[in-house]
Amino acid sequence: MAYQGYNPYQPATGNSQVQNFFTHVDKDGSGKINAQELQQALINGQGQQFSDTACNMMISMFDQDRTGTIDITEFERLFNYINSWLSCFKAFDRDNSGSIEESELSAAFQQMGFRFSQQFINFLIVMSDPKERTRISVDQFIVLCVKIQKFTEAFKQRDTEMTGVIKIAFEDFLGIALGCSN
Amino acid sequence: MAYQGYNPYQPATGNSQVQNFFTHVDKDGSGKINAQELQQALINGQGQQFSDTACNMMISMFDQDRTGTIDITEFERLFNYINSWLSCFKAFDRDNSGSIEESELSAAFQQMGFRFSQQFINFLIVMSDPKERTRISVDQFIVLCVKIQKFTEAFKQRDTEMTGVIKIAFEDFLGIALGCSN
Repeated sequence: MAYQGYNPYQPATGNSQVQNFFTHVDKDGSGKINAQELQQALINGQGQQFSDTACNMMISMFDQDRTGTIDITEFERLFNYINSWLSCFKAFDRDNSGSIEESELSAAFQQMGFRFSQQFINFLIVMSDPKERTRISVDQFIVLCVKIQKFTEAFKQRDTEMTGVIKIAFEDFLGIALGCSN
Repeated sequence: MAYQGYNPYQPATGNSQVQNFFTHVDKDGSGKINAQELQQALINGQGQQFSDTACNMMISMFDQDRTGTIDITEFERLFNYINSWLSCFKAFDRDNSGSIEESELSAAFQQMGFRFSQQFINFLIVMSDPKERTRISVDQFIVLCVKIQKFTEAFKQRDTEMTGVIKIAFEDFLGIALGCSN
């Protein structure tokens, strides 16, 4: 779980630690961090680097000027964001295996207020990890939760009567599914 | 546009060329190609490597045994698939700039049978290329079209009366948006 002094299960706190971690991640000393540099610094509970998808997603969430990089100020926000997700993941990883299995994911979503069918939970795991198909890592968990949050928000905006069913036109549907809700 | 003998605007044909290209791409000589190896061999019309997203998507489409790699047989199918998309892209890239601009994308989708609003076409470009926001490259085009095909198919399955509007429940909606239609 640890990597060159950074253990995501023991989040660092305080500005100096953020600064130290930033300097460590910023391999080329450019004062900016890109997705590749972030990826090289983050190891999930299965001993693998965070996925391209997770790193690209997280950089783009905090990259306000769309340069594909983040500076130290944006990095501090990202750092806190990742630590929040790690705490959340850790709480749901009840057997402390470094992965979330089906029953743990089911309990996690229930606690977040979702009532998903067992079949759907299984779909989420297979989709997140098409290779193993039985468990998801912390980076897969972050990607999954961020997407679910986003799509749930888009659905709720259209579910004005809160029936759990919406009527939606093709272009609107496509816009949401493609990630550009309009 | 060209890369070490491979010019995607002049698609190779015949098995020997596929074999030669496979050997060239398979840097570690494993007899299998992964997304990283594919990425190193494909250059878009803007002189950049195909994106991670495009390469991962294309490998996973042809990786039937879910190893994250494809063999020569799967590669031949992928090779033909990419060439089909390149021909398609070339036909829509009317000014032969190596990119598709807004008016060209609008014409492309009209020819594919879609009637998207100008605003939506603009969304598609900004979403595909958040940095430039004015044009899309061939790898961005492939990713966009594959996703639109998939989501259109899911929508049509539910639009049984062909009204262009569907009623959809939360979990079903989420399943499609997350890419695992159920």
